[in-house]
Amino acid sequence: MTQDRTQSSPEDSLIARYFKPLATDPGAFGLVDDAAVLSSSGDDIVVTTDAVVEGVHYLATDPPDTIARKALRVNLSDLAAKGATPAGFVLTLALRSKEDAWLRPFADALGEDAKEFACPLLGGDTVSTPGPQMISITAFGRVPQGRMVGRTGARPGDRILVTGTIGDAALGLDVLTGGAAAAALATDPAAREALVSRYRVPQPRNPLARAVRDHATAAMDVSDGLAGDLTKLCAASGVSATVDVTSVPFSAAAASLVARNVACVETLLAGGDDYEVLCTVPPAQVDALMAAGRAAGLAVTAIGTIVAGKQGPRFLDGQGQELVLRRLSYSHF
Amino acid sequence: MTQDRTQSSPEDSLIARYFKPLATDPGAFGLVDDAAVLSSSGDDIVVTTDAVVEGVHYLATDPPDTIARKALRVNLSDLAAKGATPAGFVLTLALRSKEDAWLRPFADALGEDAKEFACPLLGGDTVSTPGPQMISITAFGRVPQGRMVGRTGARPGDRILVTGTIGDAALGLDVLTGGAAAAALATDPAAREALVSRYRVPQPRNPLARAVRDHATAAMDVSDGLAGDLTKLCAASGVSATVDVTSVPFSAAAASLVARNVACVETLLAGGDDYEVLCTVPPAQVDALMAAGRAAGLAVTAIGTIVAGKQGPRFLDGQGQELVLRRLSYSHF
Repeated sequence: MTQDRTQSSPEDSLIARYFKPLATDPGAFGLVDDAAVLSSSGDDIVVTTDAVVEGVHYLATDPPDTIARKALRVNLSDLAAKGATPAGFVLTLALRSKEDAWLRPFADALGEDAKEFACPLLGGDTVSTPGPQMISITAFGRVPQGRMVGRTGARPGDRILVTGTIGDAALGLDVLTGGAAAAALATDPAAREALVSRYRVPQPRNPLARAVRDHATAAMDVSDGLAGDLTKLCAASGVSATVDVTSVPFSAAAASLVARNVACVETLLAGGDDYEVLCTVPPAQVDALMAAGRAAGLAVTAIGTIVAGKQGPRFLDGQGQELVLRRLSYSHF
Repeated sequence: MTQDRTQSSPEDSLIARYFKPLATDPGAFGLVDDAAVLSSSGDDIVVTTDAVVEGVHYLATDPPDTIARKALRVNLSDLAAKGATPAGFVLTLALRSKEDAWLRPFADALGEDAKEFACPLLGGDTVSTPGPQMISITAFGRVPQGRMVGRTGARPGDRILVTGTIGDAALGLDVLTGGAAAAALATDPAAREALVSRYRVPQPRNPLARAVRDHATAAMDVSDGLAGDLTKLCAASGVSATVDVTSVPFSAAAASLVARNVACVETLLAGGDDYEVLCTVPPAQVDALMAAGRAAGLAVTAIGTIVAGKQGPRFLDGQGQELVLRRLSYSHF
């Protein structure tokens, strides 16, 4: 029970010192109010919320600037997959301490990302906790009325597309926690760094949001593992899928670890934290989405096809044999 | 590091079992999507976020149904003070366990309040934590464009009004933690229960929201202590205030504890968790706001006047002498 009642309200000065500079939107009222305003514009407001917990979603040893970026970017990734343009976010910060050495780089990096992605801080709450730190962000985006891209629109014949590469973040976590990938890459600091950075700082695909909105029948971001997330999308749409595993895009570092039997394909397909966009697109519109990807400097890869049926997606190897995945995704419970 | 990766995604079944029934708004998509939609309606969307942490904002021994109600109601209270009509909320739940004995009454009570206040669940995130549980809620309300009631509009001459009674929740916490009030009320279970219930289950003043919007020049909810919150409102508006402490509404139980010297007035003025509406109203409109209070069955009391000046509010006793408050409010840091 913290009962630190003081005249000067250090909670308010903490907010003023670190977070007021991020509240650039007029609807944030410079963080002096209890509430913010998202102004009316005729658009629908897309709302998404994702929390990151120390020791669960990030490591206590992760640098504070990467923690800030991850906390915001996992939400930006949801907005990208929904076809929404970022409009702002609110932040709940459960802190053990208010050390400047942690808060300064955290707030600075959060401000940089807020600016880069045009997603200003609108408000928030800072609370003290004796336990692990937690950052909960609710982010807002705009889409024209009725145009949010859901999970339920995938239809048989649609092609399944995914951005970027899959499985790097899971391998980055393996490196950070001293797993097999750490040993295998002991003499390759560049590959280690590339994988670790995919774990710590996701690259949300917001530049593709407009094209996803224009061309995808269903979309979601890959946060809990490609296999499990595709399973959820298929279930929501009442369809099944066939995935050609040899088409799934792996980075050079990931492919090399698979070739050396350090990692197995299943780990990559079920690994979390990719924050790529997974979407289904009618064949006639695949070229347009891929062109939008090229324009954004972003790889977009077709990995399979939606088929009729109620069973889970089938993952086929190079010989057309089905891989039976023991795990599909990450789950908290 | 929790790495419980399973086929069946118990996180999804937890959400489906406990929280899907609360997602009654079409924009929630039955919680099967990553995001929700707040549909366009020409209104401004008011956004507020408040978290409650076990051991900080509620006691680990508090019943789960009261924890759920408190988590939602502290946010509803913000919407009421901003003059906004509830539109929905998103929930982040950081849980140590997924015990049905805790989650069932928690979710049921949350659903009852969501229905009572017409504020449906739109989405959320459940994460595991090894530390204290935490519930972070971001709530949304609607106001006509540009009509959110802020903190900056108080003007000299405005009367200062407050709803309900002040200080009961602080005394309720004192009862629960075995303080002086617990001993003094040992033989008065009704008074104990009345105070405890004010601490555990706030009564947000949403029925008064429309009148606040129509008549108040500035408003906020009293969450960190009346004295401190009025100080913040005055600072935001660039004004000062004079408060007649004998006018501040205390419950019979609180007044009796003050009369017996068990509690001092300062404790009540600086105690947190009141969740009443504090607002400033031009003299010509005071009657209208009070009439709206009567229509809602809610006491509204004038406690002072806004005056010009930059100094903090002055609290005057029955002899017109200034009380010097050592503490104004609750602070987390």
